[in-house]
Amino acid sequence: MRFLSFHCEYFKYRTTRRSRSKIFEELTDSNREGSLKNVIVFFLSIEKNDEENPQNLDNGILEIEKITKQLKVNNIVLLSFAHLFGELSSPEFGLEALKIMEKKLKGSYNVLRPPFGWFNELELKAKGHPLSRISRKI
Amino acid sequence: MRFLSFHCEYFKYRTTRRSRSKIFEELTDSNREGSLKNVIVFFLSIEKNDEENPQNLDNGILEIEKITKQLKVNNIVLLSFAHLFGELSSPEFGLEALKIMEKKLKGSYNVLRPPFGWFNELELKAKGHPLSRISRKI
Repeated sequence: MRFLSFHCEYFKYRTTRRSRSKIFEELTDSNREGSLKNVIVFFLSIEKNDEENPQNLDNGILEIEKITKQLKVNNIVLLSFAHLFGELSSPEFGLEALKIMEKKLKGSYNVLRPPFGWFNELELKAKGHPLSRISRKI
Repeated sequence: MRFLSFHCEYFKYRTTRRSRSKIFEELTDSNREGSLKNVIVFFLSIEKNDEENPQNLDNGILEIEKITKQLKVNNIVLLSFAHLFGELSSPEFGLEALKIMEKKLKGSYNVLRPPFGWFNELELKAKGHPLSRISRKI
């Protein structure tokens, strides 16, 4: 797993069209678009390596918790993101992993997770402090 | 070199404070903030490997040209970005490389290059089509 985080004043997404992935989630009125203020957006790749090391999911959650606590932010976005130069897992595993992480994080955070398998418009304003952009490899 | 590109309806930046890098550019009225519409933002890491292979700069420019031509976009941002999981070059070389790329690309494009060595606020609206986000390793 690897992720890039942007600490944002606001973040909005709107689904546009299906991506090439055969695995996708149905759109509903509640996931078609969304927004949060004072939010950390995690652009997140689930990787091949995570399929053999499922403890990576818990380690990823720990890293997310560290960053959110350090920045005192309670709103997060888990955005599946393929473009972080890693070797991706199967889409089946990727979606399952994101759902597991979402479920665990929802105990402590407001979590927005744009639907898997769709392209999105993204609008955001990223802050300009020393920890506003962070990358982690798990 | 590696980059991540976002095709955006708009992009704005505003410098906030010095980063940890000893190498930095002075702020002026013309580089302190900036914006472009219908723009491709290249989040770009200059890497150790580029110091020994300076032809990477020209190859990077070729990739940038391919993407801009495919999307028919004439406005670009070259944003120095450390968080793409690569091994960075020295900051001296990184700044020099960005300046060389900017100079060559200015022949054909409107180029915005936020000053090196500063944190920035970033505001953008990324489009949601199949080529709106691309990553390349040179």
